[in-house]
Amino acid sequence: MKKIPVGVLGATGMVGQSYVQLLSAHPLFEVVFIAGSQQSAFKSYGAALRAKGMSLEGMPQAILDLPVRSMDDIAHAKSLARCVFSAVDTQTATIYERLYAESGLAVVSNTAAHRMDEDVPLLIPEVNPEHIKLIDFQKKYRNGGFIVAKPNCSLQSYLIPLFPIHQVYGITKLVITTMQAISGAGYPGISSLDIMDNVIPYISGEEEKSEQEPLKILGSIVEGRVLHAQDIAISAHCNRVPVRHGHTVCVCFGCKKKPRLEEIQDLWNGFTAEPQELRLHSAPAHPIFYTLEKDRPQPLLDRDRDRGMSVTVGRLRPCPIFDGRFVALSHNTLRGAALGGILNAELLHAKGYL
Amino acid sequence: MKKIPVGVLGATGMVGQSYVQLLSAHPLFEVVFIAGSQQSAFKSYGAALRAKGMSLEGMPQAILDLPVRSMDDIAHAKSLARCVFSAVDTQTATIYERLYAESGLAVVSNTAAHRMDEDVPLLIPEVNPEHIKLIDFQKKYRNGGFIVAKPNCSLQSYLIPLFPIHQVYGITKLVITTMQAISGAGYPGISSLDIMDNVIPYISGEEEKSEQEPLKILGSIVEGRVLHAQDIAISAHCNRVPVRHGHTVCVCFGCKKKPRLEEIQDLWNGFTAEPQELRLHSAPAHPIFYTLEKDRPQPLLDRDRDRGMSVTVGRLRPCPIFDGRFVALSHNTLRGAALGGILNAELLHAKGYL
Amino acid sequence: MKKIPVGVLGATGMVGQSYVQLLSAHPLFEVVFIAGSQQSAFKSYGAALRAKGMSLEGMPQAILDLPVRSMDDIAHAKSLARCVFSAVDTQTATIYERLYAESGLAVVSNTAAHRMDEDVPLLIPEVNPEHIKLIDFQKKYRNGGFIVAKPNCSLQSYLIPLFPIHQVYGITKLVITTMQAISGAGYPGISSLDIMDNVIPYISGEEEKSEQEPLKILGSIVEGRVLHAQDIAISAHCNRVPVRHGHTVCVCFGCKKKPRLEEIQDLWNGFTAEPQELRLHSAPAHPIFYTLEKDRPQPLLDRDRDRGMSVTVGRLRPCPIFDGRFVALSHNTLRGAALGGILNAELLHAKGYL
Amino acid sequence: MKKIPVGVLGATGMVGQSYVQLLSAHPLFEVVFIAGSQQSAFKSYGAALRAKGMSLEGMPQAILDLPVRSMDDIAHAKSLARCVFSAVDTQTATIYERLYAESGLAVVSNTAAHRMDEDVPLLIPEVNPEHIKLIDFQKKYRNGGFIVAKPNCSLQSYLIPLFPIHQVYGITKLVITTMQAISGAGYPGISSLDIMDNVIPYISGEEEKSEQEPLKILGSIVEGRVLHAQDIAISAHCNRVPVRHGHTVCVCFGCKKKPRLEEIQDLWNGFTAEPQELRLHSAPAHPIFYTLEKDRPQPLLDRDRDRGMSVTVGRLRPCPIFDGRFVALSHNTLRGAALGGILNAELLHAKGYL
Repeated sequence: MKKIPVGVLGATGMVGQSYVQLLSAHPLFEVVFIAGSQQSAFKSYGAALRAKGMSLEGMPQAILDLPVRSMDDIAHAKSLARCVFSAVDTQTATIYERLYAESGLAVVSNTAAHRMDEDVPLLIPEVNPEHIKLIDFQKKYRNGGFIVAKPNCSLQSYLIPLFPIHQVYGITKLVITTMQAISGAGYPGISSLDIMDNVIPYISGEEEKSEQEPLKILGSIVEGRVLHAQDIAISAHCNRVPVRHGHTVCVCFGCKKKPRLEEIQDLWNGFTAEPQELRLHSAPAHPIFYTLEKDRPQPLLDRDRDRGMSVTVGRLRPCPIFDGRFVALSHNTLRGAALGGILNAELLHAKGYL
Repeated sequence: MKKIPVGVLGATGMVGQSYVQLLSAHPLFEVVFIAGSQQSAFKSYGAALRAKGMSLEGMPQAILDLPVRSMDDIAHAKSLARCVFSAVDTQTATIYERLYAESGLAVVSNTAAHRMDEDVPLLIPEVNPEHIKLIDFQKKYRNGGFIVAKPNCSLQSYLIPLFPIHQVYGITKLVITTMQAISGAGYPGISSLDIMDNVIPYISGEEEKSEQEPLKILGSIVEGRVLHAQDIAISAHCNRVPVRHGHTVCVCFGCKKKPRLEEIQDLWNGFTAEPQELRLHSAPAHPIFYTLEKDRPQPLLDRDRDRGMSVTVGRLRPCPIFDGRFVALSHNTLRGAALGGILNAELLHAKGYL
Repeated sequence: MKKIPVGVLGATGMVGQSYVQLLSAHPLFEVVFIAGSQQSAFKSYGAALRAKGMSLEGMPQAILDLPVRSMDDIAHAKSLARCVFSAVDTQTATIYERLYAESGLAVVSNTAAHRMDEDVPLLIPEVNPEHIKLIDFQKKYRNGGFIVAKPNCSLQSYLIPLFPIHQVYGITKLVITTMQAISGAGYPGISSLDIMDNVIPYISGEEEKSEQEPLKILGSIVEGRVLHAQDIAISAHCNRVPVRHGHTVCVCFGCKKKPRLEEIQDLWNGFTAEPQELRLHSAPAHPIFYTLEKDRPQPLLDRDRDRGMSVTVGRLRPCPIFDGRFVALSHNTLRGAALGGILNAELLHAKGYL
Repeated sequence: MKKIPVGVLGATGMVGQSYVQLLSAHPLFEVVFIAGSQQSAFKSYGAALRAKGMSLEGMPQAILDLPVRSMDDIAHAKSLARCVFSAVDTQTATIYERLYAESGLAVVSNTAAHRMDEDVPLLIPEVNPEHIKLIDFQKKYRNGGFIVAKPNCSLQSYLIPLFPIHQVYGITKLVITTMQAISGAGYPGISSLDIMDNVIPYISGEEEKSEQEPLKILGSIVEGRVLHAQDIAISAHCNRVPVRHGHTVCVCFGCKKKPRLEEIQDLWNGFTAEPQELRLHSAPAHPIFYTLEKDRPQPLLDRDRDRGMSVTVGRLRPCPIFDGRFVALSHNTLRGAALGGILNAELLHAKGYL
């Protein structure tokens, strides 16, 4: 089978590099176009990575030899690729993702730029695959192109395990406290002087995203627009901790209908969704892994479960205030970033959008 | 002035060592009796510390030369000291603290053994100094001796800033998520293999203490017994993070009377209590320090404020579910352990109980 | 092919657990006997690991169900297994390894107990495979059984890259400074309070081993005894650093014959030895990987090279005092412990000793 | 007494900030002029620090209100101050330190720009205070101004303890392996992603400085020029480790005259020099503290000794290759940077050069 030619925007950043690496071994996609920042443009991709002090380890030579293009080479991208993965900064994304889409390309975005646009699917394939049909509306005025977004990296940790609860009992209230890994801030990201032996109880914009994005993801499609979920109130505290990968989240949840905790455990153990049914390449066999160990999940021990795509949940227990509480964890640069984006693209492909 | 002779029980543990060190420079107390575990007994205190791989740094030679006594040498303790600071493990405390008290000694305890006994004051001097009068009841059947307890180390971080809110608005609901330092687990405590690059979302017994002890501390004295606070529901998540000292806590709070957040800020800035009025030696000038910095408090930067006795609070902001939320931090081995215990003893002395 | 039945002594320690895990997926060996400490004996292996707070992750149920035997069950071991891997503490090893060998078993040891015995091969398969013939002498008075030892975990980092230099130029002087990972101290090993934000410039017994063991390994066999290498002087500084896995070593070396550094680089790039020729299962394709990156090797980036069996070397450069210097790194719990021991057993098997 | 008015160049960097903080409580000096980078210029010092995400903690308001000047405001600096402390980057220092000196100012430099200039003293006040007379030559062609440099931050750790050995036995050979703290790289400096759970065995330019600067410091003054020490060969390995402050160094040393190790210990215990005799404000009572603890010095436990100005030395022992070896440690941002620079200025003042 001939692979689908794709591009990576922002390929010299940490998430972009992760995209290139994961795609270089992907059975469905092939990287043919790479765009980066001005200081990387006109270098080979290998030289650009090296200039930024990043590792080339495990990258095929053919990809290291690709020239880094300017973000403005949209026509060139369109001539080579069918889809671009966007891992640029939000400001760049705000300008360019729309332009790439309007050239007729599929834009699978990792950025916050268009997440809340009313006709852009904010997609977790196990949660709201039906939102994909918003694309039909976009394609009309974007020359056949479109943007698909994925949510903020910490959401995957808690929204995937909350989803089966929501389906049965109806979530109404959430208190969420995150302990997020340093890789979530990109490279070079957080100074070692700031985080060694420390906790930083603030991540710019993170609490807002944590409180708003779930409402869209859990919303329903009405006349080509997402109607955000009503009746769910979310309070989020976001913290940075000295952990390399893996966002850990403590969750309290309230429901419309009082849940029995044993039933939730069964829901989790049995949970599969469209990516599993479609046997998408990057889909984990079990999107949710519930552990009975009293002191798990832990980022060091659980982040890599099922290639970093399975969310590990533990400590489900009664709550003196709400209907229950638990701890959840997922890998922020795999499920929460590049591999999550690739899963989005795999779903698009399976559904005939790519 | 002649100093008050005191003893330290469990002096070869981490908190016990901290007691000895802090007391060796204290204007009011003088360590004359040291008890430790069986394997330390009959050694000099210096030799016992060295055998456990602990530092002698900064300890006066006179104290290092003290013999480590068996916990059974109660009569000896009574002949030398007026008060003992207890930093033994809970099991040992359950047996011995009562015996030391019944010998007529004042037992200032750091342990969980008698915290919830109905006539033992569970004391934070800035919060419930009036509970001290429970001692009068104890003294009757304990030959003039008594036990005073201090709460679990993480409580100080949030209960001190919650107290002025509670006084004015009446706390009804609390969701608390802690990120606790490794020194809270004692020495050798947590293996480096377990905590480096990791979060452990569980601390044995900690959530129970966090949910129950505040109700006693905020309770009222009725006929020589504490009537626990009613109408307060607390949900606690307790986590261990790779931080040396300083417990950071994310708090959501609900009140009987809707508070205005600016008023809370004023309450905090102006808050002083009996330890400040009595000018107790270890009392911080400002028990609560509110910072306007958006990313504070941080353990690395704030734990040592005012000799580790001031609680730093930040990020007071509205909450989509409750009446407000904030982040608080205190030093777990100073305010939360040894120096907090010493402040309890200073209050006892100022009130004529020592 | 029927697998060779083997036992693991000290299976509830960190290295022992690593042996069991690696052997559970090994094509040649099958674990049929497990011995542990007194407090583990009579439990199932799974229960014993859990009681010590260790992970069961990835262990086959059949192995978790094995009963943990007493170290004294030597006859039982002999009735089931042909070979035992020993990962007990040195004191236990001093007593028991000899007894297991005298029962007729092959003892593949990870411990220091018999490393310096004159008829026990101290084996790195890429360096001194010919020492294996010492076994013939042992077998005579040990009822067909024997002991084979592997060196201290840090040695592999520098002795493997030094060996091709030694063959051509003759090493005469070595100054070695190690920065060793915390996993080298076992579990629970080093307290997080001792090593976070710290370096400990001392590891008990480590410098002595680093200065003596290489002389035996580089020695020659004369009349069934090892004649230690003469004319090599070694000075070692051993340090513990806050790194999970991977011992990094800075080396200065002097030679009999002045080497050209480019030639050394060629020697490294082309180096293979008996394990590669025999295609042993755990042998890395390239035992030495030389990197031209100016800031490598780094434990985080290089420790897992070729399943943790390849030594990464970098920064070969002239030295103002000696003939050259470089930095080397290997994985201390894989090449340096369990997988290195398994490679020893694979060599024994290939040579007809197992 | 009226304080000496001084300036700080590069005041918004980490070392510059440290200078300002230490000088704000100094009995002899008073900061009246602050220069920083272009993006800081025209802001108040407080605003400039805040814009860089740096802490204002403990800084007097008067200093936070000082305007940050352009590096070009040399005439302004000259009109206000008698001396400037330079903590700019090497490139800026190469251009500006000379200009400030030629305006008639004393430039006390922390940078590498002029360290090896033949008439610039490379000063450690306990080691080569007599080099100060090089200033007389500089003043002639620099309008009464001059530059005084201090060595690279790691040198203080080993050169101070080596100096008394050198005086008596004559150092001829040194093998030095450093484990350097992250604060040595400035702020934001090293990414947390690069150093957590890692060692980086390379620091740009550091080994060259470690091998050359000691030869100048131990050199003698001949006709207004430094004659570098002959007959000393130094081999340095420099590593970065996950430690906040404190450079630890393993040292092997060879001498002209064979030393007895007990004598060296006595030399260290009794060592004082001109800063101690002159009772300079920042001089430690004991520049060298020798510990008999077998596992010391450790950065966490020893870096703050005597306000971070005392070098802690341990593990003096025979060496199989050289005449002895030991481990040494000093605080890289105090003795090794700002406070070391201030001690230089105090010596200049005591000697009438300021």
